[in-house]
Amino acid sequence: MPRIVLVIEYDGANYVGWQVQPNGVAVQQVIGGALFELTGERIDLHASGRTDSGVHARAQVAHFDTESRIPPDKFAFALNTRLPADIRIKGSFSLQGEGENEFHSRFSVKKKHYRYAVLNTVHASAFYAGRALHIYNKLDIEKLNAAAARFIGTHDFAAFKAAGSKVATTVRTVYSSEWRREGDLICYYVSGSGFLYNMVRIMVGTMLRVGLGYDDASIIDAALNDPRRTNAGDTAPAHALTLWRVEYDEFDTDEVLQENALL
Amino acid sequence: MPRIVLVIEYDGANYVGWQVQPNGVAVQQVIGGALFELTGERIDLHASGRTDSGVHARAQVAHFDTESRIPPDKFAFALNTRLPADIRIKGSFSLQGEGENEFHSRFSVKKKHYRYAVLNTVHASAFYAGRALHIYNKLDIEKLNAAAARFIGTHDFAAFKAAGSKVATTVRTVYSSEWRREGDLICYYVSGSGFLYNMVRIMVGTMLRVGLGYDDASIIDAALNDPRRTNAGDTAPAHALTLWRVEYDEFDTDEVLQENALL
Repeated sequence: MPRIVLVIEYDGANYVGWQVQPNGVAVQQVIGGALFELTGERIDLHASGRTDSGVHARAQVAHFDTESRIPPDKFAFALNTRLPADIRIKGSFSLQGEGENEFHSRFSVKKKHYRYAVLNTVHASAFYAGRALHIYNKLDIEKLNAAAARFIGTHDFAAFKAAGSKVATTVRTVYSSEWRREGDLICYYVSGSGFLYNMVRIMVGTMLRVGLGYDDASIIDAALNDPRRTNAGDTAPAHALTLWRVEYDEFDTDEVLQENALL
Repeated sequence: MPRIVLVIEYDGANYVGWQVQPNGVAVQQVIGGALFELTGERIDLHASGRTDSGVHARAQVAHFDTESRIPPDKFAFALNTRLPADIRIKGSFSLQGEGENEFHSRFSVKKKHYRYAVLNTVHASAFYAGRALHIYNKLDIEKLNAAAARFIGTHDFAAFKAAGSKVATTVRTVYSSEWRREGDLICYYVSGSGFLYNMVRIMVGTMLRVGLGYDDASIIDAALNDPRRTNAGDTAPAHALTLWRVEYDEFDTDEVLQENALL
């Protein structure tokens, strides 16, 4: 049975997140509905990971198995005609060769990237409402980057995990961690082996305290060495976070987005 | 009576345009309502020009006269607490000196700038829905810019005016006209002394035919020399157009946005 991989972009504003929840519409559910319309099959859709309510994805990855004879690359076109404008399939394909059915969107992840967008202006913006966090006190980019650099490496991120969430280990590796000016925005880009529940949002909440001058960058080291949740800052709001890129041995979502671009 | 100037940003998606219409909510009306709440006055709000239904503004300018003693720069803060998130005041001020009450948002305009955003990809985008025009055939940027350059100068733009709209003269001066790559987008930036009704959208519709290879750039010259509407292309959709910047002798909206930025 062919295994189809989807690269999915969504604006999280109207959804309770990736995964089906009792209190609203989930992205997984909307795509599952479109797949049912298309194939007549009740399809299990497996993503690279959940995204929370309000969180966006530039490149979420999900896979499913189907008896359908629709050519793999045609799923993107066929689904896009059945999906709302705030969910778009950027590419669909099947992996070639023997390992095809061993690929798993979640378990095969090699590296994940997130972006957190901040608008640092006196007055907020009509265009970034629901997409960036508006902060009206001046941020110090050098301090933000001094804080960001301290996350790089393999650490126990227990202090940067939502209270109550359970995992086998809280040790994770962060490969890159940097704030960059981008037009009107200042954006935090982070990549890692994987992220705990709310980890990026708590990292951002802690760095913002440093960037605003309330704390010194050394609080990052303290929280990495003494992993109590109270050592880290608040959880930054969901609506400014985007799942940016997922890398596997088999492919990188940036390659799929590159193929989608015509210019 | 003090004359207050506002620089206004709005996402046009939920509005029938700047000016009050019978068929929906106008931006002018929403800001007028907030001003009434604030001052108790029924205020006439004069903009640099109307924007059509769905058109956005990064920097619209409007002025009004008031008896209120609210300090001019505080109007922006006070209005923003009373406005929906898709309309933001980026700055408010009064012009100093004798000419203050001779300034008029519309009649004093020296130069206006618009931006038209195009997403040239196989599959559309969740994030640019309602903000950019999705074109899934490959555009040729060199051809777009060859076409754009032909608009520069003083011409009779009668072919680039919505049929039926009446004005004293259809001669306008275009100062700059250029397509630029901008991340995932290709954007058309144009500045001029003023624009006829739908002029930018018809210019874009005509250039897109050139960029797609349907017409040669010389059709621009033909339409400028023989000003029948049928010589130009279709009117490109409103939702990708943004009123970008307005320049006066007294100030430039880019200066106001610069003051709003903290980084």
